[in-house]
Amino acid sequence: MTPFIDQLQTALGRCGNPVLVGLDPQADLLPEGILPKQRDTGWAELAKGFSSFCRGVIDVVSPLVAIVKPQAAFFEQVGPSGMAALADVIQYAQSKGLLVILDGKRNDIGSTAAAYARGFLGREGQSAWGADAMTVNPYLGDDSLKPFVDVATQRGAGVFVLVKTSNPGAKMFQDLMSGPRALHQHVAAYVEQLAQQTLGAGAYGSVGAVVGATHPEQLAQLRVEMPHTWFLVPGYGAQGATARDTAAAFDGHGHGAIINNSRGIIFAHRRGEYAQRFGSGRWQEAVEAATRDMIDQLRAETPAGRLAAR
Amino acid sequence: MTPFIDQLQTALGRCGNPVLVGLDPQADLLPEGILPKQRDTGWAELAKGFSSFCRGVIDVVSPLVAIVKPQAAFFEQVGPSGMAALADVIQYAQSKGLLVILDGKRNDIGSTAAAYARGFLGREGQSAWGADAMTVNPYLGDDSLKPFVDVATQRGAGVFVLVKTSNPGAKMFQDLMSGPRALHQHVAAYVEQLAQQTLGAGAYGSVGAVVGATHPEQLAQLRVEMPHTWFLVPGYGAQGATARDTAAAFDGHGHGAIINNSRGIIFAHRRGEYAQRFGSGRWQEAVEAATRDMIDQLRAETPAGRLAAR
Repeated sequence: MTPFIDQLQTALGRCGNPVLVGLDPQADLLPEGILPKQRDTGWAELAKGFSSFCRGVIDVVSPLVAIVKPQAAFFEQVGPSGMAALADVIQYAQSKGLLVILDGKRNDIGSTAAAYARGFLGREGQSAWGADAMTVNPYLGDDSLKPFVDVATQRGAGVFVLVKTSNPGAKMFQDLMSGPRALHQHVAAYVEQLAQQTLGAGAYGSVGAVVGATHPEQLAQLRVEMPHTWFLVPGYGAQGATARDTAAAFDGHGHGAIINNSRGIIFAHRRGEYAQRFGSGRWQEAVEAATRDMIDQLRAETPAGRLAAR
Repeated sequence: MTPFIDQLQTALGRCGNPVLVGLDPQADLLPEGILPKQRDTGWAELAKGFSSFCRGVIDVVSPLVAIVKPQAAFFEQVGPSGMAALADVIQYAQSKGLLVILDGKRNDIGSTAAAYARGFLGREGQSAWGADAMTVNPYLGDDSLKPFVDVATQRGAGVFVLVKTSNPGAKMFQDLMSGPRALHQHVAAYVEQLAQQTLGAGAYGSVGAVVGATHPEQLAQLRVEMPHTWFLVPGYGAQGATARDTAAAFDGHGHGAIINNSRGIIFAHRRGEYAQRFGSGRWQEAVEAATRDMIDQLRAETPAGRLAAR
């Protein structure tokens, strides 16, 4: 079983960029024509619309990027049929050669954490959902993280543990000082241990960390404290972080991070320049343009440019 | 819209006990006859078995207790059909007069947290899942909790925020000291504020806290620090806490807590005394006996006895 981190590095090297496209379908932001024009759209129709929209995004981005991240919450919001759409989207993305991180920020105590891990991680019948990796919340401590690490290791899957999230409220608990270090640094130290226990062929492990680009100084500090931990970096675009803000997430080879953009790519047809150029009718062209622009910006302003140069 | 906390207190008063039955279906623990006897049980068959098993538990416990707590992880583990089973179980429990807390320990940044809240909270078409309350993880801070509080308030639903979980690893981060208080006490102080903002007719709010009975001293301390916060208390039974360990969760009127038991009730047919008396064939009688025994123990050894006396 090839470790997840090696699959990820190979895929990123092939694409030459670290862009992670977030699949966050929201009914009121979908392009025209995706949902039927009836007044009361039921859950099943919404779910079908989400699936068709995400497939449309995947068709456009799969030749350009290595990896996508469906956000479980938006699929769950429309009930069981939304969850069927989520499974469809995971499978479709993989059929187009993409790696899939399920963003569910799950966790629970031991045996329940194991149920999440076994349920979500691992392709080809190893799990019901078949994701390549998932996001996990650290609040419950080491024995809640261990089942994810174990299952991921067995199945060639990955885990990204929340360390410092991108939202303004992240500071409330994550920045509380305990001794000389903030809570998120205590979490970081443990995640770095897990990364070291799951090393692939290179310097990084299959256990990674979620670190927001909206806190560039903390991002830089965590890069130093977590030399073996690959970062999943949210906050670029709609949340305000620029390409330059993400630069510190990378090592000198352009490795070490994937940079997420959800709304800024998938709903590009609603945003300024792209809205003018393409509008709702040509939304897939807007997705493509926004993806290519993000790739160019990251190549120009971060060490990720070195991924493409090789 | 009757606040959740008032619905909860009314229901508990009617039943005269604070038992919360956890619905954690696991394939390898189900009684014989629930799953078909073929070699390769597919996800859909497992999901159907989970639904039928949980309905069987609900049939037994609904005349005895006020509230049940399906654990999302076990349903998610079997994929989209498991999620359909979860929806079925929520609806069936409510049709039998029970309140339902969905135990998913979800959370995410603002707009995504709102999707979870809108998706899960609120009966009668207000949400796709229709739960009366849900569990939520605090790691992401105040702006991640607010959408749950807002939606819960609008829809007469409840939220239980993880404060101190019942697992051994809970201490790793939750007990880190920041100033004179542990992290979980900082979380507790904020949750208590939210409880005060969502007061029902009595002394408690519709925002509650998850506090494990496996740490009885911390439970007692948190009861003092959180006078308006209803506790959802895991850890009784299979995790080792006794009825006496839960006593500090209650106030002098026997209010203030619901005590969860999952495996100890639903899989009673596999446990010592109940296994001998009933075995797998009469598993529903084992469920009933274990529930009645737990009710008796809580009435005898905690202030919850006063619920029944009124």
